Amino acid sequence: MNYYIGLDIGGTNLKAGVVDETGNILSESDIPTGADRPQEVVLQDIISAITGAIAASAVSKNNILAVGVGSPGMVDSETGTVIYNNNLGWHDFKIGDLLGKALNLPVRVENDANAAALGEVIAGSAKGVSSAMIITLGTGVGSGFVIDGKIWTGFNSMACEFGHMVIEKGGRLCNCGRRGCFEAYASASGLIAMTKDAIAKNPDGKLAELAKKEGHVSGHTAFDAKDMGDEAAAKLIDNYIDYLACGLVSLINGLQPEVISIGGGIGKQGERLLVPLRKRIDEEVYGAGHDVNVKKTKIVSCTLGYKAGLIGAAMAAKQIIK
Amino acid sequence: MNYYIGLDIGGTNLKAGVVDETGNILSESDIPTGADRPQEVVLQDIISAITGAIAASAVSKNNILAVGVGSPGMVDSETGTVIYNNNLGWHDFKIGDLLGKALNLPVRVENDANAAALGEVIAGSAKGVSSAMIITLGTGVGSGFVIDGKIWTGFNSMACEFGHMVIEKGGRLCNCGRRGCFEAYASASGLIAMTKDAIAKNPDGKLAELAKKEGHVSGHTAFDAKDMGDEAAAKLIDNYIDYLACGLVSLINGLQPEVISIGGGIGKQGERLLVPLRKRIDEEVYGAGHDVNVKKTKIVSCTLGYKAGLIGAAMAAKQIIK
Repeated sequence: MNYYIGLDIGGTNLKAGVVDETGNILSESDIPTGADRPQEVVLQDIISAITGAIAASAVSKNNILAVGVGSPGMVDSETGTVIYNNNLGWHDFKIGDLLGKALNLPVRVENDANAAALGEVIAGSAKGVSSAMIITLGTGVGSGFVIDGKIWTGFNSMACEFGHMVIEKGGRLCNCGRRGCFEAYASASGLIAMTKDAIAKNPDGKLAELAKKEGHVSGHTAFDAKDMGDEAAAKLIDNYIDYLACGLVSLINGLQPEVISIGGGIGKQGERLLVPLRKRIDEEVYGAGHDVNVKKTKIVSCTLGYKAGLIGAAMAAKQIIK
Repeated sequence: MNYYIGLDIGGTNLKAGVVDETGNILSESDIPTGADRPQEVVLQDIISAITGAIAASAVSKNNILAVGVGSPGMVDSETGTVIYNNNLGWHDFKIGDLLGKALNLPVRVENDANAAALGEVIAGSAKGVSSAMIITLGTGVGSGFVIDGKIWTGFNSMACEFGHMVIEKGGRLCNCGRRGCFEAYASASGLIAMTKDAIAKNPDGKLAELAKKEGHVSGHTAFDAKDMGDEAAAKLIDNYIDYLACGLVSLINGLQPEVISIGGGIGKQGERLLVPLRKRIDEEVYGAGHDVNVKKTKIVSCTLGYKAGLIGAAMAAKQIIK
């Protein structure tokens, strides 16, 4: 059997893994990214992580055919370069070339959200479907569009940044500098900001009580308070889902993927997110209200967690091998 | 050489044409659609139009391999059915089956905007590019996404309705029943409504004078008044382009097509639309303001006019023949 290395670069940690050709992870290693150090030093650590993962897997290096890298930020897959990443402070990091020379293996570099999307399609929530949009609701809103088992990267490998689709022109300021982006509302950060606002307005309410007990406000604070019967929380969740559905309906109207998988911290809320979300989408989607018999996009939760990125990066590497 | 029939169904007229395999139209016929008549009667007229186009082309019926239909509304390409069309009043019109039996030819039914997009990619403004989004700014906003020479129809053939992507949540009422759709702002109808508003506010201005002279307000009234130095018109066009760019930037961020072609009445404005539009897109697109070297989506005008629909429908039919 042939094997592939998957590398998932995060802001804090990076993970390397040996993955078989069907998407099973055989071994993993996990090290701090330390992105603020010189690129040569980061690179040495990455190589150590990969070597460590290979050793732990008991797979012969000869049976490893390629390396896949999932990196946040703007990635040029053609040249294997991380063009720009604000959080890591990387600019024109030619990680593909450098890693390829060091390991003597072909390397495929992809955006991390795209790699994770491919992982969910090959081994997770959207396994085997003809088309899927994977939406990660975390610090930002990541998105990846997979068609017939291939990541849609656009002609310049800069797709798919639907987190930066404007849903409310002139609205909330987004990290990208634009106003009103989907990400500014539908991310876990967006929900946390909304929850903090609600707490500030009603410091004696259930939300405030819950946040105090847990020591912080998280993406599930409002979901928990709603489950405890709090009306303010229920309203807040309604409002959040209204924004989330707004963006998803636009993507369904435009692209009609077979599946949309929701991941990230908010994706973990499962059916307490999905039940009201599906209802809202059904009400808003193009053609709603007419008596039409149309196959509907399935809305599900991601199932692989952080492993999606590892598996997807490795499987993207597999695709460059004939 | 092999030939294909292209049929483009419009609200008022429908056109049939004989198209060769490279996308040249040999002959055309044009008849009133009369969509409010019984489907059998409409069908007989369509067959006459096709027969007429074949006769005019001097191509032998034996060399015609398939028929492509471009229809407005919700189309199920798999079953060849126009599921629903509000303007034509059609509901479950099984035009593919009926036409196929009558002509004894395979039939492919596509949404008209999708067919037109394929036409522009095969023989027009986006000829030969790897991916293109064709945006038609007319009564509505039509969109079609073509990847590697194939229309992206989604898993259920209902893509691509990016005219119904919300850009201003809770904003202007759209014909689809939702609020804030791209179409409500960026269509020719949107611009005409904005122009009428401006005239109502300033009935002695240049815009009002021009509209009076021409007898009506059109999609080019404001462009013409701007060219004549009218400041109110310049502001109006700026505002219109701001909305148009807002939607297009979201599509670029998400899909990164090699080309976006602008068609319909507004597309005919050419460089007086495109020059400020490209500038606005450059300012707003993801990564703008960072020193990054990324290939940019080309923004151009459609070149085929109504012929795009005919050619694209015929070429979609060609794709079902092995």
